[in-house]
Amino acid sequence: MRAAVFNGPGSVEVADRPDPVILEPTDAVLRVVLACVCGSDLWYWRGESPHPVGSIGHEFIGIVDEIGDEVAGVTVGDLVIAPFIFSDMSCPHCLNGSTLSCLRGGSFGNGEIDGGQGEAVRVPLAGSTLVPVPGSGHSEETLKSLLSLSDVMATGHHAAVSAGVKPGDTVAIVGDGAVGLCAVLASRRLGAERVIALSRNPDRQKLALEFGATEIVEKRGEAANEAVLALTAGIGADAALECVGTAQSMATAGAIARPGSTVGIVGVPHGEAPFVDTFFRNIGWKGGPAPARIYIPELLADVLSGSIHPGKVFDYETDLDHIADAYAAMDERRAIKSLIRVGSIGK
Amino acid sequence: MRAAVFNGPGSVEVADRPDPVILEPTDAVLRVVLACVCGSDLWYWRGESPHPVGSIGHEFIGIVDEIGDEVAGVTVGDLVIAPFIFSDMSCPHCLNGSTLSCLRGGSFGNGEIDGGQGEAVRVPLAGSTLVPVPGSGHSEETLKSLLSLSDVMATGHHAAVSAGVKPGDTVAIVGDGAVGLCAVLASRRLGAERVIALSRNPDRQKLALEFGATEIVEKRGEAANEAVLALTAGIGADAALECVGTAQSMATAGAIARPGSTVGIVGVPHGEAPFVDTFFRNIGWKGGPAPARIYIPELLADVLSGSIHPGKVFDYETDLDHIADAYAAMDERRAIKSLIRVGSIGK
Repeated sequence: MRAAVFNGPGSVEVADRPDPVILEPTDAVLRVVLACVCGSDLWYWRGESPHPVGSIGHEFIGIVDEIGDEVAGVTVGDLVIAPFIFSDMSCPHCLNGSTLSCLRGGSFGNGEIDGGQGEAVRVPLAGSTLVPVPGSGHSEETLKSLLSLSDVMATGHHAAVSAGVKPGDTVAIVGDGAVGLCAVLASRRLGAERVIALSRNPDRQKLALEFGATEIVEKRGEAANEAVLALTAGIGADAALECVGTAQSMATAGAIARPGSTVGIVGVPHGEAPFVDTFFRNIGWKGGPAPARIYIPELLADVLSGSIHPGKVFDYETDLDHIADAYAAMDERRAIKSLIRVGSIGK
Repeated sequence: MRAAVFNGPGSVEVADRPDPVILEPTDAVLRVVLACVCGSDLWYWRGESPHPVGSIGHEFIGIVDEIGDEVAGVTVGDLVIAPFIFSDMSCPHCLNGSTLSCLRGGSFGNGEIDGGQGEAVRVPLAGSTLVPVPGSGHSEETLKSLLSLSDVMATGHHAAVSAGVKPGDTVAIVGDGAVGLCAVLASRRLGAERVIALSRNPDRQKLALEFGATEIVEKRGEAANEAVLALTAGIGADAALECVGTAQSMATAGAIARPGSTVGIVGVPHGEAPFVDTFFRNIGWKGGPAPARIYIPELLADVLSGSIHPGKVFDYETDLDHIADAYAAMDERRAIKSLIRVGSIGK
């Protein structure tokens, strides 16, 4: 098969890789239909986080092509969503909601295990990991939204859930990348009355508003803090969502969160959080990589009913042969998020 | 009046200070009966945190001696508990549970405003700050427990509440100081089934067990992590409570918390938290200075009913003239917590 291979910072290209086969009776082989590039992939591309040479990509949907003898819950021909982590859903951590810490789980596209940015993927623990999509004949728009549940929308949702967003809240969102935009959608979905999106980019502002943001703050740093405080009568946001992971963005999130609140953090920390300052204001920090597998069913229902359209974060499309363009478009902020068309629903 | 004065690291002594008087119609003047030394006072004593020269001490109970015209809720002659922060209980932060961020609030014993380690204190916002103790003729033991509600027991409770301790939980507590011991008591009070106390000191272990700890771990560092994981089938604690504030203790708390849980942190951070590691395990951090005023009523009821005896943390007693001994005993770990007898209930 053809699949993206990470060769080092700035170098992702398509190469021939062995066709995946069933190795364990709990495996499935998936034919990838749509994949995409994650903000975390960009950290590797930029050389700011390490990534082994080899397979890459962890957000994908596809068609089940083959299943092992012990796979139950999905069957050949199913259109399925792959959460970015595989998990058994039965260990103490999964049962407690932490699929990322699954005792038998692991991640896709880590150099060895197949990545989503390729024609096919061997999915371990397939029965407990993959979520079948009911119905057929889904629109292009719906397929994109289904893809978003693999990671980005689940992650935006995790930010809001971790911060305890509840009906009537005023939420402030730091980060206008795809995750931050999905966090806008997730916050409104959870009942937030006001969502303040921090963004200086007109395209992203537009999508934030479409996703339900009620106010846009264009400033950065200290001026952004002051703007959010001014919008909240000096109190701060009931929930601040940190969707970037830099020292600057964590400082902003900490500063605009109201005392006693919890910052929902889903941006991988690449810098120090303002931990002492927030301690004295009783502000907590909670988040991490999303337990996407747990969130997918409820988000899927809303995608299929048409009440949310998270797939709108994909504003750049290409195919596997042009995978490097998909990365470059995001790296250069020409794209919010890059979609990669890999295969078709029918064979 | 005579009151303790902080002159710099290692130097706290009694000196004459002006008798407090009513300055605002919402003030009361309190005659201090019992006061004590806080773990945070020790940071000042050791020169590890700055403290202005002047008044010190913020944990005290006493008798209301005089009230301003606008004070309602307490009256002259009342035995009252002073939470370590004064607050109006009506601003947006107080109404949201964050008395430390009260828009009109402030702290006692900060160099200027009277401290609890003295014969009398002017208490601003007295009606909303002070909590009257019903009944009379309370035993010495009860009075000590009432004093503990001013800060230390409220803080241990805050650690447990912030971590979301619930019935049936296994809780691990880092820190065998008075706060950590109160966190043992608080965790059991909230229904924890198992409480693992990390302590190497026999006297503290004894009190931890008396307060309801079910297991003691004597190890430190990596060995402590392994011991707690071994006691929890490799899973980690449902809630880890951080009651010290050093880099080492935060690292331990982060390591023994199960994925997806929240570390309740009440030790003022004096070092870096293992923020990135805990991010990837979906472990949150929440806590800060306790909103003691909010917790006192429910804890007070349990003290008066005799169901909790947090005053047992006081294992060293002296008077105001020997205030330096009270600090030294704690600094040298000869005492868990030092009580200072200042005045009598009757005039």
